[in-house]
Amino acid sequence: MSAQSVRPSTGAPEGAPGAARIAVLGAGSWGTTFAKVLGDAAVASGAPAEIVLWARREEIAREITERRTNSTYLGDIVLPPGIRATTDVAEAVTGAEVVVLAVPAQSLRSHLAAVGAALGERAVLVSLIKGLERGSDMRMSEVIIEELGVGADRVAVVSGPNLAMEIARQEPTASVVACEDAAVAERVAALCNNPYFRPYTNTDVVGVEIAGIVKNVIALAVGICDGQRLGDNSKASVITRGLAETTRLATVLGGRLETFSGLAGLGDLVATCASPLSRNRTAGRLLGDGLSADEVTAELTQTAEGMKSGSAVVDLARRHGVEMPISEAVVAVLDGSLAVDRIATLLLARDLKPEGK
Amino acid sequence: MSAQSVRPSTGAPEGAPGAARIAVLGAGSWGTTFAKVLGDAAVASGAPAEIVLWARREEIAREITERRTNSTYLGDIVLPPGIRATTDVAEAVTGAEVVVLAVPAQSLRSHLAAVGAALGERAVLVSLIKGLERGSDMRMSEVIIEELGVGADRVAVVSGPNLAMEIARQEPTASVVACEDAAVAERVAALCNNPYFRPYTNTDVVGVEIAGIVKNVIALAVGICDGQRLGDNSKASVITRGLAETTRLATVLGGRLETFSGLAGLGDLVATCASPLSRNRTAGRLLGDGLSADEVTAELTQTAEGMKSGSAVVDLARRHGVEMPISEAVVAVLDGSLAVDRIATLLLARDLKPEGK
Repeated sequence: MSAQSVRPSTGAPEGAPGAARIAVLGAGSWGTTFAKVLGDAAVASGAPAEIVLWARREEIAREITERRTNSTYLGDIVLPPGIRATTDVAEAVTGAEVVVLAVPAQSLRSHLAAVGAALGERAVLVSLIKGLERGSDMRMSEVIIEELGVGADRVAVVSGPNLAMEIARQEPTASVVACEDAAVAERVAALCNNPYFRPYTNTDVVGVEIAGIVKNVIALAVGICDGQRLGDNSKASVITRGLAETTRLATVLGGRLETFSGLAGLGDLVATCASPLSRNRTAGRLLGDGLSADEVTAELTQTAEGMKSGSAVVDLARRHGVEMPISEAVVAVLDGSLAVDRIATLLLARDLKPEGK
Repeated sequence: MSAQSVRPSTGAPEGAPGAARIAVLGAGSWGTTFAKVLGDAAVASGAPAEIVLWARREEIAREITERRTNSTYLGDIVLPPGIRATTDVAEAVTGAEVVVLAVPAQSLRSHLAAVGAALGERAVLVSLIKGLERGSDMRMSEVIIEELGVGADRVAVVSGPNLAMEIARQEPTASVVACEDAAVAERVAALCNNPYFRPYTNTDVVGVEIAGIVKNVIALAVGICDGQRLGDNSKASVITRGLAETTRLATVLGGRLETFSGLAGLGDLVATCASPLSRNRTAGRLLGDGLSADEVTAELTQTAEGMKSGSAVVDLARRHGVEMPISEAVVAVLDGSLAVDRIATLLLARDLKPEGK
C-alpha cells in the first residue's frame, strides 16, 4: 500500500487509513456499476477501499457523493459506502493506485492528458472501454500506453458478458481481467471479486480488446436482423460467423484463439446479442427498420460504440488482409452504400463449401 | 440414378422417371420440415425428387398426402409437390437412395429393424436426431452402423442452428452436413440446398453429433436460469462454459475443435438458447420454476431430448474422465438430488483462476 492512499479530508467520505485508493473515470452506467463492484468487493474482502468516481457533469457527481445514487444511468440502485465523486480528473487520479477508464472510446485520448499529470508512478490503468480510436485504428490499451508513456505491464482490460444494469442489480456475472503481466491481472481481479462478480484472469490483452470491439459491430448486425424480422436461425449464423471473423482478425494481430471461446469472446457476444438492454443491438434494430445512421444516433441517448468503431475495424482488417464480410456489410449499411434489406441475401450468399473455408 | 427410383403408381403423387427417391422417417416438426427442404431443393435445382415421409399416425400421413399440410406440427405451412406420406416403413424405404431419420433418439434402434429389410445396398442414411441412446450411451450414427451393418461412409448427420418452425417459414438458415466420406456429405448437401437452407459440409461426424446432443442439456441449464430469473450475463456464462465442456467431451471422443466454433456447435447452441420455440429451454424454465422432471414431462407435448440424454452424457463424460459441471448440475436437478435454487451459486462457485483452467 503506498503512502499516496491516504489523502487529506475534502469533506467527502474518505477511505480508512491504508485503504486502497481507486479512481474510476466516467460515471455512465458501466463506470458507475464498476465502482459499485469495487466497493462491494472491498466490503466482501474486508480490505477497505476508497473509490473516487470522476463525472463530467456536476449534478451527477453531487448526486453520487450526497445520495449514493446515479439515477440518470442506474435508476434507484444504491452505491456502497466508500464511493464519492468529483468533476476534477486530477483530484480523482491523485494518489490512486488503480485508475479505471470508462469514458467513450473516441474521447479517451483527450481525457488522458489530464490523467497523466496526476498519475502516480506505479499506478495501474484499467480499461473498461470497447472501441477502436478512429483515425489511428488503435486499441484503447495502445492509446493509454502511447499517451501516458507507461509499460504494457501497467495496463489491464476488463471484458466479458457484462451488461451493466444486471451487474448493478447484483445478478451473478463472470468476467475476464487481462494484462500482459499476470500478477497485475490477478491484483485487479482481487480488487473487483465479490459475491456477484467473478473475474477470471488472462494475459491476452489483444484478444480481449478485439473481442470487445468487434462484438459491438456484430451486435449491430444481429439488431439489423431483428429489424428485418429474421429469426433465431439467421441470428445464430450471424453470431457464429461474426465470432469467426473476429477471431481471424485478432489472431492476425497476435490474440489467442482460446480467448474467443471464452467469456470475453463468445460470452460477451452472446450476452450482448441476447439482451434487449444492448445499445448496439437496439441501434441495429433501428437500422434494420430502415432508419439512417444519423436518424439512429438522434434516437439514442447513449453512444452505440459499434457505429463509431465499425469503420475502424474494417480499416484494420483490410490493412491486415483479413476478410470480415459481416462487419463490412454493417459498415456499408451505416454509410448508406448497402440497402438494409439486402442483408439477408448476403448472409447466405456463398457457394456450397466445407465450413470454415 | 438406380432403377429403383421409379415405382409403380400408388395413387399418390409420384416423382418423374429418374427422380431421386428420398425417404424421411418421422413426420414431427423437424422431419416434415426437412422433407419440405428437400422438396424445395429439388424444385430449385431442377432435379426432380420423390420424397416419401413415414408417419406413425395414419391421420397425419393422410393429411400430408392429401392436403400437403401437417397441421399437428407445422400449422398451415404447405409442403411442396413431390411429397407423400405412408405409415409403412418398408414402403417408404424401398427404392430410396437416401433415408433420412427423424424419429425420437430412444426409439431409433427399434425403427431400424424395419428399415434394414427394405434398405437398398447403396442407400445413404442421414440422421437428424440429437440424442444418445440410453443404456448403450451410443450416438445415433453408431446405432445406425451397428444395427444396419453399414459402413460409416454411408451415414451422414445434419445439424446446425435449425429451429424447424423458422425453416418451415423459409427464413434464411445455414446448416452442416457431416459424413466421414466428404463426397457423400456433398451429395446430401446438394439434395437439401435451396434458397433459404444453405448446407455446409464437414467430415467430423463425432463432433457434430456430440454438439447436437449436449446442446439440449445446456439449453435445459439456460432454461433453468430463466426460471430462476437470472439475467443475460449469467446465461451467457452458462452458454460459454457449456460449449467449453461439450468441446472437452467431443475432443476426447475424437471430434475436432473447430466444429464447436462453427454452425453445428456455437450456432446451434445459440439458436436453441435464444429461442422461445426450443422445447429443451422451455423444459428447463419449468424446472427452474420448481417443477419436478415428471411434472415437466406431463406439461410438454413433445419430447425434451436433453431430459433423456442428460444422464447418458454425464455417464459418457465420467467414463472418459471429462469434467462437465453444467451437465452434471442439470442431471442432478432432473433426478431430484440438487435443489434448483442452488444453480446460481454453482455457476460462480470457483476460485479466482486463469480462465480455462
